[in-house]
Amino acid sequence: MNTTRQMVFAKRPTGAITLDTFRLAETKLAALNDGDVLVKNLWLSLDPYMRGRLSDAKSYVKGVEIGEVMVGQTVGEVIESRHPGFAPGAHVLTSLGWQTHGIARGTELSLVDGQRAPLSYYLGVLGMPGLTAYFGLYEIGQPRAGNTVVVSAASGAVGSVVGQLAKISGCRVVGIAGGQAKCDYVTSVLGFDACIDYKAGQLRAQLKAATPQGVDVYFENVGGEIMDTVMARMNPFSRMIVCGLISDYNTTEPFGSKMTRAILVNRIKVQGMIVFDWLSRYPEGIKALAGLLALGKLKYRESVVEGIEQAPQGLIDLLNGKNFGKQLVKLA
Amino acid sequence: MNTTRQMVFAKRPTGAITLDTFRLAETKLAALNDGDVLVKNLWLSLDPYMRGRLSDAKSYVKGVEIGEVMVGQTVGEVIESRHPGFAPGAHVLTSLGWQTHGIARGTELSLVDGQRAPLSYYLGVLGMPGLTAYFGLYEIGQPRAGNTVVVSAASGAVGSVVGQLAKISGCRVVGIAGGQAKCDYVTSVLGFDACIDYKAGQLRAQLKAATPQGVDVYFENVGGEIMDTVMARMNPFSRMIVCGLISDYNTTEPFGSKMTRAILVNRIKVQGMIVFDWLSRYPEGIKALAGLLALGKLKYRESVVEGIEQAPQGLIDLLNGKNFGKQLVKLA
Repeated sequence: MNTTRQMVFAKRPTGAITLDTFRLAETKLAALNDGDVLVKNLWLSLDPYMRGRLSDAKSYVKGVEIGEVMVGQTVGEVIESRHPGFAPGAHVLTSLGWQTHGIARGTELSLVDGQRAPLSYYLGVLGMPGLTAYFGLYEIGQPRAGNTVVVSAASGAVGSVVGQLAKISGCRVVGIAGGQAKCDYVTSVLGFDACIDYKAGQLRAQLKAATPQGVDVYFENVGGEIMDTVMARMNPFSRMIVCGLISDYNTTEPFGSKMTRAILVNRIKVQGMIVFDWLSRYPEGIKALAGLLALGKLKYRESVVEGIEQAPQGLIDLLNGKNFGKQLVKLA
Repeated sequence: MNTTRQMVFAKRPTGAITLDTFRLAETKLAALNDGDVLVKNLWLSLDPYMRGRLSDAKSYVKGVEIGEVMVGQTVGEVIESRHPGFAPGAHVLTSLGWQTHGIARGTELSLVDGQRAPLSYYLGVLGMPGLTAYFGLYEIGQPRAGNTVVVSAASGAVGSVVGQLAKISGCRVVGIAGGQAKCDYVTSVLGFDACIDYKAGQLRAQLKAATPQGVDVYFENVGGEIMDTVMARMNPFSRMIVCGLISDYNTTEPFGSKMTRAILVNRIKVQGMIVFDWLSRYPEGIKALAGLLALGKLKYRESVVEGIEQAPQGLIDLLNGKNFGKQLVKLA
C-alpha cells in the first residue's frame, strides 16, 4: 500500500496566511479502481488564486474545507494505471493538490510532453498562467500595434507572458514590479520598454513618464492603489483585464476604488477573467505559446522551493511578492 | 436688435451647486451673418451631466468657464434665418444653452418634427436621454429574454426608457428610485416588475427579494453605495453600463467601490458610455424610439419649471433627485 505526504488545510486565516494555516499529514492510499491512475507528483504549482480557496466567501469555485488536502495543479509521473490512456512512466498534468502522491481518475488527467518543454513549464508558461495571459490579453485586452500596454506583477508567471505577447504584437509595454532586480529583469531579459518599481515610490510620476501616450490596455494582477493610479492614466476606449487582486487577498477589508468616474468619462471597459472560461480553446493557446517558446521569443523564469514541507512558506512568499518568476515546489 | 436673457456661470462650486453658482444676464444679440439662424428657445433640457461641466477636472468635453452662458440643449423656433435649411417658424434642436434666444450656425442645428411628437420630447425620450438608454442598454448591456435587468434612477429620463426597453425585450426589470410615489409610477405606469425605494432602507434585502435569479444587466445612473449593493448581486458574465454617477457629482471625494473582486470572480463587464459615441447611429435610435412611442409602448413623464430664472433651482433639484421624470425648463 502506498503512502502520500500531504499539506492539509488546518486553520482558516482571517488576514495573512501563516505557516499554521496548513499542517503536514501522512495517509495511506487506497487500491486503484478501474479508471484510476496512481501519480507521483514531481512539481506543484503555487498561485495567487490559492488564497481565495482558503476563504469562505462565495467564489467561482468551492473553497477548501478544513481537513482537506490543499488544492493545486501538479505535474507528475504515472506509477500505476488502471486507465488505458495512461501507462506507467507517462507524465501528466493533475489537480491532485499539495501532496507527494495521489490517485486520480484518468478522465481528470492530461498527458504532457517532456520532449517539447521541461515538465514544470506545463504549470507556467504552457499552463494556466500562460493561458491566462494569452486569452486575457487577446480576448479582453484586444491590443493593437502602437497601443501602450501596462501589466502589474510584471515579472510573475502571468505578467511576464502578457508583456512579452504585447511586445510581439507591436505594443509599447510597461511593467510594474517590486524592486530594482525584478525591474531590471523585466526590461533587459523580457524586453519590456519600461518597468516601474512600485517600491521606489512616486508611482504616479513614474507611470506618467513611462506612458506619454496614456494607457490603452491594463492587465491587472494586483489591485489596490496601483490599480487606481494606472486607471487614472487610461485613455478613452481603453480596456482593463481584472485577472488578479493580490494586494487584497490577505486583507480583511477590500480596497475602495475611486475610479468609477474615469470608467464613465473615458468609456473604459473593465472586465474580469478566469482562464477556465476558455477551456475549450486551451489547445490553441498552448500551441501558440509553445511555438513562441520554441522560437526563443518567450523568456521564462522559475522560483523553486524543495519539498512539500516548504509549500506553505512558498505560498506566503508568493502572496508577499517575494518570488521572482513562476513559483513552484519541487516534490521529487 | 434682439435681446437674450441668459444664465451665466458665476461661481465655481466646490461641493453642491447653489443658486449663486449662476447669475442672470441680459445681452444684445449681434446681427446675423450668412449661415446664421436666430432661434427663440422654447424648452431647455436639464441633465445630470451638467454638474460635470461646472468642474475644472479633465473630462470628455471642455467645461464651462466663468462668465460663459451655461451649456445645454434646447428646442426652439426659428425667428430669422440666413441659412437655406431653416425657415422662420421651423422647430430646431440646438445647443444654445441657458438663454431665451440665441444665434446658432445652421450647421449646428437639426430640425425636429412637432407633428410626430411634442417638441419637448426631442430633449427626452427622443433625444439624448432616450438614445443613451437605447444604445447603452442594447450595445453594452446586451439583454437577453429572461435576464434580470436593474436600473437606478428608474423614474428619470434615461432610467424610465431603459426599463421599458428591457421589459419589451423580455427581461425581468427591477428599478431603483427614491420614494414610494416614484416606485408606484415605475411599476404601475412604466410596467417594471418591481421597484426598490432606496430611501426606505434595507436596500440589500429589498434587492435580494426583487432579484431571485441575481442580476444580469445593471444600468447605473447613480453610483455610490447603491452601485456596490447591486454589484454584489450580479451574476457570472453579467454586464454593467456606467452611464451616470449622480451621487458623486456634488461630493468632493468620490465613492470608493469595493466590488473589484466581484468583477473578477463573476467576470463582470463594466463599461462606461457616453451617448455621443453613437452619433452616427442616432437616426436608428430615434426611429426605434419614435416607433415604440407611436405604438403606446413607451410611457414618458416630464417635470417642468417655468422661466429661465428657475433653471438653477431646477438643476439643484434634479441633482438631489427631487425631479419626477425628465426635467425641463419651459422658456416660452
